[in-house]
Amino acid sequence: MSDSYSRLVAKLKRVHVLGTVAGLLGWDEQVNLPADSSDQRAEQMALLAELQHAAAADPAIGELLAELEKCRQSGGTVSETDDMRVVVREARKDYDRVVKLPAEFVAEKARLSSAAYHGWAAAKAKSDFSAFAPHLEKHLAMAKEEAAYLGWGDRPYDYAIDKHDPGMDAATISALFVELKEGLVPLVRAIAASPVRARADIFKNFPVEAQREFLREVTERLGFNYRRGRIDVSLHPFCEGAGADIRMTTRFDADNPLDSLFSSIHETGHGLYEQGLPLDRQGMPLGQNAGMGVHESQSRLWENQVSRSRAFWKFFEPRLREKFPAQLATVSSEELYLAVNQVSPTLIRVDSDEVHYNLHILLRFELEQRLFSGELAVADLPAAWNALSRELLGLAPSSDKQGVLQDVHWSGGAFGYFPSYCLGNMIAAQLWFTVQKAMPGLEDDFAKGDFSRLLGWLRTHVHEQGRRFDTLSLVRTVTGEELTPQYLLRYLKERYAPLYL
Amino acid sequence: MSDSYSRLVAKLKRVHVLGTVAGLLGWDEQVNLPADSSDQRAEQMALLAELQHAAAADPAIGELLAELEKCRQSGGTVSETDDMRVVVREARKDYDRVVKLPAEFVAEKARLSSAAYHGWAAAKAKSDFSAFAPHLEKHLAMAKEEAAYLGWGDRPYDYAIDKHDPGMDAATISALFVELKEGLVPLVRAIAASPVRARADIFKNFPVEAQREFLREVTERLGFNYRRGRIDVSLHPFCEGAGADIRMTTRFDADNPLDSLFSSIHETGHGLYEQGLPLDRQGMPLGQNAGMGVHESQSRLWENQVSRSRAFWKFFEPRLREKFPAQLATVSSEELYLAVNQVSPTLIRVDSDEVHYNLHILLRFELEQRLFSGELAVADLPAAWNALSRELLGLAPSSDKQGVLQDVHWSGGAFGYFPSYCLGNMIAAQLWFTVQKAMPGLEDDFAKGDFSRLLGWLRTHVHEQGRRFDTLSLVRTVTGEELTPQYLLRYLKERYAPLYL
Repeated sequence: MSDSYSRLVAKLKRVHVLGTVAGLLGWDEQVNLPADSSDQRAEQMALLAELQHAAAADPAIGELLAELEKCRQSGGTVSETDDMRVVVREARKDYDRVVKLPAEFVAEKARLSSAAYHGWAAAKAKSDFSAFAPHLEKHLAMAKEEAAYLGWGDRPYDYAIDKHDPGMDAATISALFVELKEGLVPLVRAIAASPVRARADIFKNFPVEAQREFLREVTERLGFNYRRGRIDVSLHPFCEGAGADIRMTTRFDADNPLDSLFSSIHETGHGLYEQGLPLDRQGMPLGQNAGMGVHESQSRLWENQVSRSRAFWKFFEPRLREKFPAQLATVSSEELYLAVNQVSPTLIRVDSDEVHYNLHILLRFELEQRLFSGELAVADLPAAWNALSRELLGLAPSSDKQGVLQDVHWSGGAFGYFPSYCLGNMIAAQLWFTVQKAMPGLEDDFAKGDFSRLLGWLRTHVHEQGRRFDTLSLVRTVTGEELTPQYLLRYLKERYAPLYL
Repeated sequence: MSDSYSRLVAKLKRVHVLGTVAGLLGWDEQVNLPADSSDQRAEQMALLAELQHAAAADPAIGELLAELEKCRQSGGTVSETDDMRVVVREARKDYDRVVKLPAEFVAEKARLSSAAYHGWAAAKAKSDFSAFAPHLEKHLAMAKEEAAYLGWGDRPYDYAIDKHDPGMDAATISALFVELKEGLVPLVRAIAASPVRARADIFKNFPVEAQREFLREVTERLGFNYRRGRIDVSLHPFCEGAGADIRMTTRFDADNPLDSLFSSIHETGHGLYEQGLPLDRQGMPLGQNAGMGVHESQSRLWENQVSRSRAFWKFFEPRLREKFPAQLATVSSEELYLAVNQVSPTLIRVDSDEVHYNLHILLRFELEQRLFSGELAVADLPAAWNALSRELLGLAPSSDKQGVLQDVHWSGGAFGYFPSYCLGNMIAAQLWFTVQKAMPGLEDDFAKGDFSRLLGWLRTHVHEQGRRFDTLSLVRTVTGEELTPQYLLRYLKERYAPLYL
């Protein structure tokens, strides 16, 4: 059995290494690719995808899994919490997802995604949802078909959610979101009615090179290991890579230094998680992340709970002023801190502050549910979007571009993905209160520029677990409570009420 | 038959695409890799090498080749100059080189190369050849073994040469080098006796950013297409990539701007060749370069014949002065031009001027011949090196580090590689006189910053031929003459005699 297990691990490792090569090609495409080299890159990516699929669908993996599962069912020697059991369980999930989908279906979905992406971009440019609607119809149909192939035919939206957040389902999310909405809407309304407003004139002419130095210092102090990673520039910030080589990106705008800084910190959160996964278990589920929601909890915790705190700015404000003395000469500490924690509603999710952000997700989750249930027709989506936008954000999009067409996700058929963002916010807040209880005086560390106790705690309790737990089990195990939106609500109130109310 | 041919081409293309992926990983390793990520990269490279080998040794390639060769032998419809014939001929050569070597031999050579590389680096650090000698012994033995596997058992050094320069052999090179030496040594002696010396104090404090801008302008004007390539920084300059994505590198030193500039121009020569290979034949031998010597002829022609010319500097000197007005304020045009064409002997090949450079190659070729014939024992190599160095360069290394251990090549078992550098110089000069005859007034173009006629001619006569011709046939076809060192001698005299004699 141990031999079968070793052979399984070697096979999984092979799939993983091919994935890291494809990941590097993807990073390079966003960061380095010359303007007219994209056809060649597409050929390389297509071949890599073919090789990855062949490695992941290797019948030998199926045979080894069957053997190991049989051994376990017959009593075996493997206990419930054993690493081997986790690896077999998760590898089975991955394997089924690869082999139960016919090759033709996968190819068809790839073709649709490519066509739908271009269709979405064109529709967005013209702000005309009807041009994108047929692609979305097809994606919805294929998402249901995909769920059926995997044995989730009666719960296609739950399948979509489980793909991103293992063990999670629409009913659970719905209950969490109802409770969140109840507490969040009054807070948002109260802040909207507040006369307090952040100064809008602070950030002008912050030279990019100094921004780069500052965010390097910040991300290094937070704990990102630049001997096993780097940060570069791309159109949209992202974090890619695995194990010993994590590649983050940001973007620079001399008139918007907070965008670079906070997007870099956000990606640093993702990067710290990936750097914290056990390196000696790379390529096995125990060396892989636990899903989108948990991943997002790490990026949000560092971006919001940590880096929008007074303690963080107590340490970094003098450093920022050193880099930009003239630009900040007329800005008080309180004005700077308010600017970092600016709250104002916007139609666009990615421009949203962290208070409004969750409302953007509630909107999308609600609409995805209705689309999957058949209650809402694709043709009626823009009207439904606009109505919900008015209800939740108090703003109505003046065009599809500002509303239903703003996000790229649906063009790739990525349903069930949006909820992860909000789950990540909830998990981040719940972890935040847990670690503060476990480690009194944590914010005093921050005020001295020391984030190592927090990182150490996250390493032990979250990062080093890999895929051992599903989303809810991880939260329960680490925090000793079921996942609840109450910590997120409490965090938001504690941060924003003193500033605005 | 046409169907078999298409299938063959698809198989070759697959090998090629895998090669480009491995190439990109190699580029990234030199340009971007974080300090502690090299183990992970080694794993990726090892898997890519395995996949490349499997694709190149695919038995289906052997079957298709046999089928296509049989068709030709039976009279077929394929004429001598037909593209298909070239593809089958060259694909056969590649295929045999892959499948005739036992896997264990290939693995053993890879292990040896890795050990020998580290052994060489350590030996060089201590300047102690005896620590490297056992590795070199083994590489020599394996090189002979490799030749025997391929059916060249009686001519192992010719096999090593043919690997780099198809169709070339030691006897041919020997004759060329004897003739070159005869003309070159008197020129070198005369220049050494000249009182003329370039000023050594010109290049101080040339800011890197301005250097970068200048070399970007130069390389772009020479014709490098930055929409299908880029230039970055690495420890040693190189050019990597294929087809629509060519990646060059350089390095910067504020006190040595000519090093960046000329190494960039050198790599641009390689890059222009790769960019000029027919894109629609990528992955087939017709879309591949014709060998090391021809490749080097392209880098040397742009680096030396073109960019050390008065015409080139007529155009670029004012631009250089614009970038560095203060630094060049006290430097006359003639002083600048002499600095660009500085000649002085050095023990180190890579630091050598183009006059002495060929003597460094003659030395290595002579020693490789003696090593392969058994006339020289590995243990006696340092003494032989030093004696030849005195004879050819008039300089005796004071240590192995400055002599026999200076180059990395032998640690990888790359015998027969050094001659390509000198062949490249000869071919460059012969092409240079040919194109000048074909296109009168070419240097007048340069003086206007226009290099397009030269590039167009090289595209048609060299680049677009791919691997259609072997080295000597290409030279004969393009210049109408056999390869001769006389053009190189003539070029060197015409350039350097007026400056120094």
